[in-house]
Amino acid sequence: MTPMTLTEKILARHAGRDAVQPGDLIDVEVDLALANDITAPLAIGVFEGFGLDRVFDREKVALVPDHFVPNKDIPSAQQAKLMADFAARYDIEHYFELSASGIEHVILPEKGLVVPGDLVIGADSHTCTYGALGAFSAGVGSTDLGVIMATGRIWLKVPAGIKVIYHGRLQPWVGGKDLILKTIGLLGVEGAGYKTLAFNGEGIGQLGMDDRFTMANMAVEAGAKNGIFAPDEITREYMAGRSRREGLYLADDPDAVFEEVVEIDLETLEPQVAFPHSPENVRPVAEAGTVKLDQVFIGSCTNGRLSDLRKAAAILKGRTVARGTRLIVIPGSPTIYRDAIREGIIETLLEAGAVIGPPCCGPCLGGHMGILAEGEKALSTSNRNFIGRMGHPKSEVYLANPTVAAASAVTGHITAPDAL
Amino acid sequence: MTPMTLTEKILARHAGRDAVQPGDLIDVEVDLALANDITAPLAIGVFEGFGLDRVFDREKVALVPDHFVPNKDIPSAQQAKLMADFAARYDIEHYFELSASGIEHVILPEKGLVVPGDLVIGADSHTCTYGALGAFSAGVGSTDLGVIMATGRIWLKVPAGIKVIYHGRLQPWVGGKDLILKTIGLLGVEGAGYKTLAFNGEGIGQLGMDDRFTMANMAVEAGAKNGIFAPDEITREYMAGRSRREGLYLADDPDAVFEEVVEIDLETLEPQVAFPHSPENVRPVAEAGTVKLDQVFIGSCTNGRLSDLRKAAAILKGRTVARGTRLIVIPGSPTIYRDAIREGIIETLLEAGAVIGPPCCGPCLGGHMGILAEGEKALSTSNRNFIGRMGHPKSEVYLANPTVAAASAVTGHITAPDAL
Repeated sequence: MTPMTLTEKILARHAGRDAVQPGDLIDVEVDLALANDITAPLAIGVFEGFGLDRVFDREKVALVPDHFVPNKDIPSAQQAKLMADFAARYDIEHYFELSASGIEHVILPEKGLVVPGDLVIGADSHTCTYGALGAFSAGVGSTDLGVIMATGRIWLKVPAGIKVIYHGRLQPWVGGKDLILKTIGLLGVEGAGYKTLAFNGEGIGQLGMDDRFTMANMAVEAGAKNGIFAPDEITREYMAGRSRREGLYLADDPDAVFEEVVEIDLETLEPQVAFPHSPENVRPVAEAGTVKLDQVFIGSCTNGRLSDLRKAAAILKGRTVARGTRLIVIPGSPTIYRDAIREGIIETLLEAGAVIGPPCCGPCLGGHMGILAEGEKALSTSNRNFIGRMGHPKSEVYLANPTVAAASAVTGHITAPDAL
Repeated sequence: MTPMTLTEKILARHAGRDAVQPGDLIDVEVDLALANDITAPLAIGVFEGFGLDRVFDREKVALVPDHFVPNKDIPSAQQAKLMADFAARYDIEHYFELSASGIEHVILPEKGLVVPGDLVIGADSHTCTYGALGAFSAGVGSTDLGVIMATGRIWLKVPAGIKVIYHGRLQPWVGGKDLILKTIGLLGVEGAGYKTLAFNGEGIGQLGMDDRFTMANMAVEAGAKNGIFAPDEITREYMAGRSRREGLYLADDPDAVFEEVVEIDLETLEPQVAFPHSPENVRPVAEAGTVKLDQVFIGSCTNGRLSDLRKAAAILKGRTVARGTRLIVIPGSPTIYRDAIREGIIETLLEAGAVIGPPCCGPCLGGHMGILAEGEKALSTSNRNFIGRMGHPKSEVYLANPTVAAASAVTGHITAPDAL
């Protein structure tokens, strides 16, 4: 038998083949097809062109309004309504009405809709997030998604792999965000173009699921087709009682072939900051210099989970946000929001002067709830800092982990947590 | 001495005169000048035309970003920044940075910036809210406000008065919202054109401050220049320890002259609903028929206070929002939000399936956070239901109190709380 990587194994199974290798064009079965309030309307248009009276499987389509909800304007209201009407007409099981909704990549794993070994395709570039669970997941355009809603299948090219090995012990204030920023900094934003980022090494065992979601989420920022972690005990714990489906706990074969191996030493890895206007423009926070901030945003599919908010609250407890700096915190799901209230996290954040938004993508993609004016600078826990991503083309976005974000909100400029 | 109404007394004092009567044109001193993120940029433009290096009094100008914050888009971000920069340049004491902000008409009284006897002018039509405290307050255009920021004075015509007397005992589920809706229904939206609505009668003593704010807030919906309550023990309790200024506790002279007297019997007053597309289009909730709702909004300067959320939570406790109906709840200020968390109100609302927005005007004026699509119907605790007010010109808004709103969210159609 040809040795295979974890990604190759998942793809082979979904193609009904014994083995696949990089470059193979394969036709695979999709376990879950996802769209949001921006992409679903387009996908629905494509789907309706087929004239079918049902989607391929009403339990395998997830529709999540998260980008512009609560509806920011009339066009976004029309889109959300189109999606809601479609979900009702085709009896889509996993349509998330506003009240139950949150960020797609946060709520799908949370609700057990993705299990290890799955193949998930979503009309959103950060669909790669589910690689944290040992699933193959990737983003596609809305047209492709419309076809998947009809057929339940898609053609894929098997990606070659880059093995990223994290050695050593995680340092204080360092989380998944720093590992992936460092990785993107090393590879560059096109460095993993249409490849798999396979996250490995003893460093991984020190990361909880939230940190892994952060890392898989940003695989696409290095150009990767997918990012993936071999499921382990931490994954099993996370999955326990969460899904009505059993996952498939696979791993790379010992002699699986990777095109490239990158090694990163955690012993010397400090919190990282990506400077404007690219996620690859990375430097240690200690070398950030004095960057005055108008806004700090903690949230998004990258870092809007409970442990992210918990870390931020630990720093903000008993402190207050700097005058002239706005702190916006948006929990990724209603469950996270409720748990954060129960833990006292929300109250701590409010006391510090944060504004808490309802579960949604918020300002990350320049949608709403914190758009930047000309010349403003923001530090954000999200995944992209391209020109104009969060507002005015002459605004700037810096990316960092939630502890750096919280510390920076306190001082009003980019600050390392241990410098407070 | 000519007998005077409460409003006339406040106006006379601020004009430096012994007495005024309806129709007098007077030049008055302003105790507080208010603008928000929509009106301040225009007012600032006017102010800057004077070429002054200071506002008339840096402690008597309040600037509150609440309509489009957290910034919904680039234009709103530019406006908020213009306001923030102005506040910094002129050292405005009561500028509310996002983190400390909330709805202008909620936070100004909450923070003790208005006291009984004050004369408050704001570039927002619902500035009349502060009449609940026994202050004279009215909305003006942004140009007028720009002049006030320069001079601290404004010309006013003394309004004639309509005395509204509420008799009898308040019935269950009835609040200030129902009293004022009934009043507007009787008078019509132009029935109190440029007059004072003077709220009187033993019914008033049964209303807490939150209910009074609701009523004064909507005086303008009957066309009134201002709405006012004589401050009483309930006012004194509310003011205790709240402000660094002493209020002036005035009342109508026993033989003060009103142009008109309206009497309303509370013994027979049920919860009211204003049907589209006018606040005067009022009927008892029992006569609402079956109106299916896509959205319910609880919040705004009319009904976004703690007791409003408390009433809604009492109904939603152990119940859930109907499938197909979105419930959006927006606390009026960070303090209300925090208190609602401490009381368990927010958790109850989340459990029921509500979405909680950050303190701001929300969808009330069609700004963001819950805009309606074509054909959608919403029940709202806000103050206006004109065509297109909350979104698409073909959407509909129904106005009611928070208990009717909560009950309606549970059933998905307009419902009386006692019909649950």
